[in-house]
Amino acid sequence: MPRVVVDVMLKPEILDPQGQAVANALPRLGVGDVASVRIGRRIEIEFTGEPDLDRAREIADKLLANPVIEDFTVRVEADETADANS
Amino acid sequence: MPRVVVDVMLKPEILDPQGQAVANALPRLGVGDVASVRIGRRIEIEFTGEPDLDRAREIADKLLANPVIEDFTVRVEADETADANS
Repeated sequence: MPRVVVDVMLKPEILDPQGQAVANALPRLGVGDVASVRIGRRIEIEFTGEPDLDRAREIADKLLANPVIEDFTVRVEADETADANS
Repeated sequence: MPRVVVDVMLKPEILDPQGQAVANALPRLGVGDVASVRIGRRIEIEFTGEPDLDRAREIADKLLANPVIEDFTVRVEADETADANS
């Protein structure tokens, strides 16, 4: 069943200490070619009927994202749980 | 510049209290047609050169996901910051 995916990321001008911590840990893993890491949230919303993008956008705006420091995108995605870890 | 996106979600059999809290709040917003909400993480990795999926998979496995309770997917994505909030 298709679901709506909401991606919430910090705005580009907002510092992301969590992502920076990961980026700083990478050289210790032998990874030297990463320029930046940013960490946000991915929210999967399943509707009882047809996926409703406008409704999802309203939910994201009111409940999932802080519009002062975060941007979000909303999209419909086919079910792809079978692809996990691929 | 293309970036690698790692999506980390709790395995389907693991309870997601954070997502459930959002789902339970929805009727108060007048939204009654949502079956479930699950909340995970979205990590954007920018490489200095070409995006490297194998490298990203290694980073996700060692640093970003807990393979006991979480699944992750890795993919290359074109830059789409201009689409924010659309």
